Amino acid sequence: MTNFALHPQLQTDCFCLGRRGEITVLLHRSALLPWFILVPATTVIELHDLPSPLRAALHHCADQLGRFVLAYFACEKLNVAAIGNVVPQLHLHVVGRRTDDALWPRVVWGNVAAAAQHAAPAVAAIATALRAQGGLD
Amino acid sequence: MTNFALHPQLQTDCFCLGRRGEITVLLHRSALLPWFILVPATTVIELHDLPSPLRAALHHCADQLGRFVLAYFACEKLNVAAIGNVVPQLHLHVVGRRTDDALWPRVVWGNVAAAAQHAAPAVAAIATALRAQGGLD
Repeated sequence: MTNFALHPQLQTDCFCLGRRGEITVLLHRSALLPWFILVPATTVIELHDLPSPLRAALHHCADQLGRFVLAYFACEKLNVAAIGNVVPQLHLHVVGRRTDDALWPRVVWGNVAAAAQHAAPAVAAIATALRAQGGLD
Repeated sequence: MTNFALHPQLQTDCFCLGRRGEITVLLHRSALLPWFILVPATTVIELHDLPSPLRAALHHCADQLGRFVLAYFACEKLNVAAIGNVVPQLHLHVVGRRTDDALWPRVVWGNVAAAAQHAAPAVAAIATALRAQGGLD
């Protein structure tokens, strides 16, 4: 991961929860919804160009995170997406959705204006719970 | 695939190009962007609940389709997403994007109003080209 650096926009938008192997696990600052972002240590831009082991690790990490999000935040649905129109660095969104959330059924991308941020203790609690479930090193 | 039926909303929104194994390959009717939708023959709702062989087939199909979209439509970026807020049946969007397209950098979901539809010959040509590349049975 020597040459890997997190894109400045992701640093601005997110709390860094830690790593799971070669995947950096981020939490979007907005407390509107549980919105996680996984960033594999790579310079490739598209999912299909990821080396197989890193691709498998990313999917494993996303699956584990998805199950965590459904349980911890009592969500009903996941939105899982690799978009990259604004931040080209390859990253995978894992967003927990509820039919009573502030945006339902709209997607988060382009629809989250200024919103309250997660408080530091909430972020720490999320990281602790995710680590206990094996989703963080 | 006996019990599998395509969700009515997907039938309304899309042209059916055909199948690739257990994956139904759809093209969104809007000609605004090359917007494909893959629907695995399953009743599970989340990617992480897919049986491994079908999951692998879906990713393989999405990878192949993604490469096709980049080449055939001269796109610069893919948006790959499983959302399902409106249509719960599990489906994976593979959308080709260009920095000069009508929506860039906005996502397609929620942002495509009434738009011209692909003409029948264009749909047939896309299916033929995708089949030649191995992306359709």
